[in-house]
Amino acid sequence: MKFVKNDQAAVFALGGLGEIGKNTYGVQFQDEIILIDAGIKFPEEELLGIDYVIPDYTYLVQNQDKIKGLFITHGHEDHIGGIPYLLREVNVPIYAGKLAIGLIRNKLDEHGLLRNAKLNTVQEDDIIKFRKTSVSFFRTTHSIPDSFGIVVKTPPGNIVHTGDFKFDFTPVGEPANLSRMAEIGKEGVLCLLSDSTNSEVPGFTMSERVVGESIHDIFSRVDGRLIFATFASNIYRLQQVVEAAVRHNRKVAVFGRSMENAINLGQELGYIQAPKETFIEANQINRLPAHEVTILCTGSQGEAMAALSRIANGTHRQIQIIPGDTVVFSSSPIPGNTVSVGRTINKLYRAGADVIHGKLSNIHTSGHGSQEEQKLMLRLIKPKYFMPIHGEYRMLKEHIKLAQVCDVDPANSFVMDNGDVLALGKDNAMIAGKIPSGSIYVDGSGIGDIGNIVLRDRRILSEEGLVIVVVSINMKEFKISAGPDIISRGFVYMRESEDLINEAQKLVSSHLNKVMERRTTQWSEIKNEITDTIAPFLYEKTKRRPMVLPIIMEV
Amino acid sequence: MKFVKNDQAAVFALGGLGEIGKNTYGVQFQDEIILIDAGIKFPEEELLGIDYVIPDYTYLVQNQDKIKGLFITHGHEDHIGGIPYLLREVNVPIYAGKLAIGLIRNKLDEHGLLRNAKLNTVQEDDIIKFRKTSVSFFRTTHSIPDSFGIVVKTPPGNIVHTGDFKFDFTPVGEPANLSRMAEIGKEGVLCLLSDSTNSEVPGFTMSERVVGESIHDIFSRVDGRLIFATFASNIYRLQQVVEAAVRHNRKVAVFGRSMENAINLGQELGYIQAPKETFIEANQINRLPAHEVTILCTGSQGEAMAALSRIANGTHRQIQIIPGDTVVFSSSPIPGNTVSVGRTINKLYRAGADVIHGKLSNIHTSGHGSQEEQKLMLRLIKPKYFMPIHGEYRMLKEHIKLAQVCDVDPANSFVMDNGDVLALGKDNAMIAGKIPSGSIYVDGSGIGDIGNIVLRDRRILSEEGLVIVVVSINMKEFKISAGPDIISRGFVYMRESEDLINEAQKLVSSHLNKVMERRTTQWSEIKNEITDTIAPFLYEKTKRRPMVLPIIMEV
Repeated sequence: MKFVKNDQAAVFALGGLGEIGKNTYGVQFQDEIILIDAGIKFPEEELLGIDYVIPDYTYLVQNQDKIKGLFITHGHEDHIGGIPYLLREVNVPIYAGKLAIGLIRNKLDEHGLLRNAKLNTVQEDDIIKFRKTSVSFFRTTHSIPDSFGIVVKTPPGNIVHTGDFKFDFTPVGEPANLSRMAEIGKEGVLCLLSDSTNSEVPGFTMSERVVGESIHDIFSRVDGRLIFATFASNIYRLQQVVEAAVRHNRKVAVFGRSMENAINLGQELGYIQAPKETFIEANQINRLPAHEVTILCTGSQGEAMAALSRIANGTHRQIQIIPGDTVVFSSSPIPGNTVSVGRTINKLYRAGADVIHGKLSNIHTSGHGSQEEQKLMLRLIKPKYFMPIHGEYRMLKEHIKLAQVCDVDPANSFVMDNGDVLALGKDNAMIAGKIPSGSIYVDGSGIGDIGNIVLRDRRILSEEGLVIVVVSINMKEFKISAGPDIISRGFVYMRESEDLINEAQKLVSSHLNKVMERRTTQWSEIKNEITDTIAPFLYEKTKRRPMVLPIIMEV
Repeated sequence: MKFVKNDQAAVFALGGLGEIGKNTYGVQFQDEIILIDAGIKFPEEELLGIDYVIPDYTYLVQNQDKIKGLFITHGHEDHIGGIPYLLREVNVPIYAGKLAIGLIRNKLDEHGLLRNAKLNTVQEDDIIKFRKTSVSFFRTTHSIPDSFGIVVKTPPGNIVHTGDFKFDFTPVGEPANLSRMAEIGKEGVLCLLSDSTNSEVPGFTMSERVVGESIHDIFSRVDGRLIFATFASNIYRLQQVVEAAVRHNRKVAVFGRSMENAINLGQELGYIQAPKETFIEANQINRLPAHEVTILCTGSQGEAMAALSRIANGTHRQIQIIPGDTVVFSSSPIPGNTVSVGRTINKLYRAGADVIHGKLSNIHTSGHGSQEEQKLMLRLIKPKYFMPIHGEYRMLKEHIKLAQVCDVDPANSFVMDNGDVLALGKDNAMIAGKIPSGSIYVDGSGIGDIGNIVLRDRRILSEEGLVIVVVSINMKEFKISAGPDIISRGFVYMRESEDLINEAQKLVSSHLNKVMERRTTQWSEIKNEITDTIAPFLYEKTKRRPMVLPIIMEV
């Protein structure tokens, strides 16, 4: 990084700025790079057919000899999902808490990358030292156990990355280490990178304990079967449901692959505690009376293939809704999923279930701190410079305002984009330059082979469909030897639109004959003639603009 | 309707039950049908490329001689948008309030249907009498002026349809006619059809007056230009913005076709009142100081082509964001639009504007009553039978619970589907049968020519793309005379995947040669051979399943 001075530390993001997801941060001092998190992003709907989005790792590949390690704040997909893709390019050592290591291990195993991975489990008191930098940790509260903030010590000063956090004074599991955060702040912090997800939400995020009480209430008043849907990774929530089940003499059956994995891993690591006989197999459900059954399943976001959606659709192999069932959405829909969640709720009602959902029932709380918690973090850490992370542009902007009321000079706050490099000296900070960054699309087994052209085509095809005009031409005699045939997909149902297609065919045919008379040998001319003939015709008749694909075969 | 007795009235919906939109209701007594509203629905995202959804009007076409009139509760698209499509099939007389008539007139003009339309403006005190039935009105409050509830008198009893409503005791415009509603209730109501949109929302919907105060506050504290985005049809909101502008010595420029229409119609009908010089043209904006400018525009839902989106993208011909601009979303995103609205907000922030949005700013209120208002309606109207309308299944179900606490026996409440017919006698009610109902898709100028097959194709094309294999075959000699050529769209970028395509081509070629050796004349056999060869090959290589389209030309 030519634009960073020798006595400055550089902070950058390859993902996670101006967006939710693919969190990937770096702190560099001279020839030492500390990476923090390597997440994926779930694509927005206009990325048609794309499975995941990962960052462009070019800078890391070019500087792989400098990378000291990848430090993971916690085990959510938007923080660990990119690891298999990163490791294929650069096999960096990974440091993470116990649960995150368990989840990463499963993931790398699926990708056939486990054997060569360098995995290190860290605890809160560990300090990982390199030649010029070192990394230490502080425990935070989030919607998954073993969440850490990270302190990177560099010669110009300490750089603190909060990871995802909230302050919950009555959490399930260990509380956040407030005193350590205060110590870190007292020691002096050059720059704070802090989670901005809920910076537009006033107040203080509800405690997980309140959710526990609501769950208990539901168990107390419902007699039928209870079906709980939540994020599999929210181990605390799973533990609360399991605990309530045990207290109310219910058994628990688990559905959905990620839920089964979470329950197994959670038990293995001691986060989920229950008598062994609590968990039952699918085939045992029908042997028990309704009031002894709890079903824990995936699908709280209305995901089409998840267990709950299949239950709602009546296509689940093992569970049908029966009268008296109560379905609890222990979750809130992320913005893109509101419609699909709503649809699942309607289907469950129609199938005869009662459904508990929504904010008023206190059956879910965010994993991210609201404004007052973000201020508390700012007051504890007392940074000189501030860089809001994890969030859309509007959230980063809002977080700057919160920092300002906590005495961080707005001139010392930096709303950055992915790829921007913040150069930090003892007494100075500026966005000094840019490194390669961008979004790489993963579709099937292809990484980065889907670009804008393919997506543009998918968009046109999805909205207007396709019309293919195929014709065989004898180029020696300038004669049509077969066709033109017209085939369409996604445009009109051809059997019901025979007249339209026949008319189009005649039109193309007569125009092509004229082109042949000109004895042209230019394929592009023939192709253009076909497109220019049929596209306006179809638009006039249908007010649609399908993709027109002329195919000419020379025989 | 054979299944309805001669002394029973029938109530049915062709749209608006179990869904938001395409509200279309009917009350029939013997040979008299009273239609209430004729709306469209905006398609959900999986209806790729579809512009609107309208109901199946088959029953109305079959019984057109019985239809006495179409009565419109108010001028929103989900209540009047279907009129042009209905009128093409059955030219029924239309009765509506002043503003709705104005909007319908514009709409029919655009469709070239105005000349033959039979439009009647009604006032609250009008009674429209037919031989056996009659129709009267009561004024309600909603987010558009001239909203009415409708009473259909039939021999077995009075049937009340609320339209969309809320109770706002300090509205802009005339208040709802509570005393008339009480009279109607006192006279006796056989069945109430009531708006369920907000039946999941507790409490009482905020008054439009509160929004007015927030707008006033914003005008008081902002020095730069003010850009207000809201629904064009919310004439009250427009009036409040215009009023505040006048009070704070600002001029108003209007952008977006529907907004310009609304301002013109609103002024014409007297709903929007302001000195003439208040409104300025686009080219005058830059001649005024920032603190004298208000811009009123469309795009509050993040719609791609609306004025605000173009301003946010920097592609608006006349308005660029300048420092000091404040954009106000005087609206809340409907569920499917959350993501696009969020994106517009981010872009506006990036362009340098300040943005005011969200529930906390009190700059928007719903047009629909919350639970307490729905209860108030039930208490005023005191129906014997109850049919919740306007809403998804979950909302209808919830509304039944509200009716129950207001002393409507759940056995007398009916959650119905579109097409269900409720037969109502003096002392009896039951869902007696079904009439044709369904969704017709409008795409471009095509009505109903897009079906499930076309949509399925669009879906596959949008997610996986398309691979075309085209080959010319000499069927006399059983020889390939040209090809096979492989063309793809939306699958992989072909220039970067030449190897893959070449390999596929060779594979198909060698398989086809074998088929030729078998001297088959079965095209389907050849086509299947192509698909069965290439599909598994492509899946193995890419883990994608594009649509495979084999095209064979006989020369």
